[in-house]
Amino acid sequence: MITSTSNPQVKQLQLLQKKAKERELQDVFVVEGIKMYREAPKDRLIHTYVSESFLRKNPSVFEGVDPLTELSDRAFESVSDTKTPQGVLCLVRRRRYALNDLLEGRSPDTISENISETADNQRNAAGAPLIMILENLQDPGNLGTILRTAEGAGVTGIMLSRDCVDIYNPKVIRSTMGSVYRVPFCYSQDWQGDLDRLKRRGVRLYAAHLKGEKFYDEISYRGSSAFLIGNESRGLTQETAELADAYIRIPMCGQVESLNAAVAASVLMYEANRQRRG
Amino acid sequence: MITSTSNPQVKQLQLLQKKAKERELQDVFVVEGIKMYREAPKDRLIHTYVSESFLRKNPSVFEGVDPLTELSDRAFESVSDTKTPQGVLCLVRRRRYALNDLLEGRSPDTISENISETADNQRNAAGAPLIMILENLQDPGNLGTILRTAEGAGVTGIMLSRDCVDIYNPKVIRSTMGSVYRVPFCYSQDWQGDLDRLKRRGVRLYAAHLKGEKFYDEISYRGSSAFLIGNESRGLTQETAELADAYIRIPMCGQVESLNAAVAASVLMYEANRQRRG
Repeated sequence: MITSTSNPQVKQLQLLQKKAKERELQDVFVVEGIKMYREAPKDRLIHTYVSESFLRKNPSVFEGVDPLTELSDRAFESVSDTKTPQGVLCLVRRRRYALNDLLEGRSPDTISENISETADNQRNAAGAPLIMILENLQDPGNLGTILRTAEGAGVTGIMLSRDCVDIYNPKVIRSTMGSVYRVPFCYSQDWQGDLDRLKRRGVRLYAAHLKGEKFYDEISYRGSSAFLIGNESRGLTQETAELADAYIRIPMCGQVESLNAAVAASVLMYEANRQRRG
Repeated sequence: MITSTSNPQVKQLQLLQKKAKERELQDVFVVEGIKMYREAPKDRLIHTYVSESFLRKNPSVFEGVDPLTELSDRAFESVSDTKTPQGVLCLVRRRRYALNDLLEGRSPDTISENISETADNQRNAAGAPLIMILENLQDPGNLGTILRTAEGAGVTGIMLSRDCVDIYNPKVIRSTMGSVYRVPFCYSQDWQGDLDRLKRRGVRLYAAHLKGEKFYDEISYRGSSAFLIGNESRGLTQETAELADAYIRIPMCGQVESLNAAVAASVLMYEANRQRRG
């Protein structure tokens, strides 16, 4: 059992929690909590860490788990990103998706016996692509929430501009509630080129825009569709907005000038879901 | 100018930022930032505080403002709830709403020349009541986001159980983006009684529930309607759910078990908004 907070493995975990660069170098990310641990794809699970008291209470969970490292509660707290750690975290290898994966909508990891039988409309994801395109999104909670809702709404993939917040940031990971394992995503290295590629593949690009000409629910998303969502305060850049096939907006009562980015994205995704079910 | 962080006014502001009890005792709340300051109802604005450097850059904003207190940047930082304070905050008197106000949908404060002319569907709020009923909601960001979206979607009022997070918590206030001034809300002192009262007024109660029999978009919300939203992890209590006229659910693809509470509430509010426009 590791008890010292200056142990090299402890130092390493702290670094991985804090530094995007270090996560990238090692090609891993850290997930915390029993739900996220249970849902981690087994072939990408590199190392499991458990606190002394969590292991004592749940010994059967970790039978046969290898490699498994036990930490004293104090050492565990020093590597956790949460105020009240559950007592389990693990290192997971990253997975790379290509632009094509975003069009197909299911990560190979999730085509497994693991798919919930109660899911309402599994079939959606097999239909026309539905893509979220995020430009310069900065808030970790917003990105995580968009991933979680995207899986729920049947989005086939997410494309991010390079200046978005790191998807492997612990706060993002936590708020995805496991969707980060299952929704294909990629950071675009050639933004304009990739947007053009999607258009040439027949994907219509809809820019969520305060100056949209049409209400979001006046358009059909049954065909291949993508929603462009911009930065929390500044919205989409003009260059990106100009590539859109149409500007859409969510009507707003009262004195509201805009909605939270994750809320706006969710309203759009579930409108597409509604139409595709109907 | 106040320069000391142990000045009694500074201590008082710190207390008001941190303690719900103190805010209640003094019947005030603290708002930060230029947008929230500008939108504060003038008749409820008690005291304005500005940092030395913000005042130097924006002297005209504060011409004739009384009472106005200038703080050194260091003193201002010590009273701010944000990491990078804008440099303006103010004390605002609370406003009490009755259950009836939630049915009518507009705070007297907002029936003013101040209403944005570009609002898409002002008329909604004058139609049938649309109420959000929140039980034991705990996350400040979720509550603030629900208020913001509620104003946008034309919700007429929000009823909260007494064990919800304090609506005057600085994080809630910030994420409302000003809607806290305009959306009528009240903490119910008699939960079952108030739910019964709403029902007797003809409001249909729809419980967002993972076991809902109908999809949320299979029901008409054109009549007087209320959505019941429960705690982030446990959902609605059984006693509350039993008072609902119908259970509804948002369909979910993949392995998603639930949506973020603010996202679920927003999808429901905008479905009602969509139907009421149509």
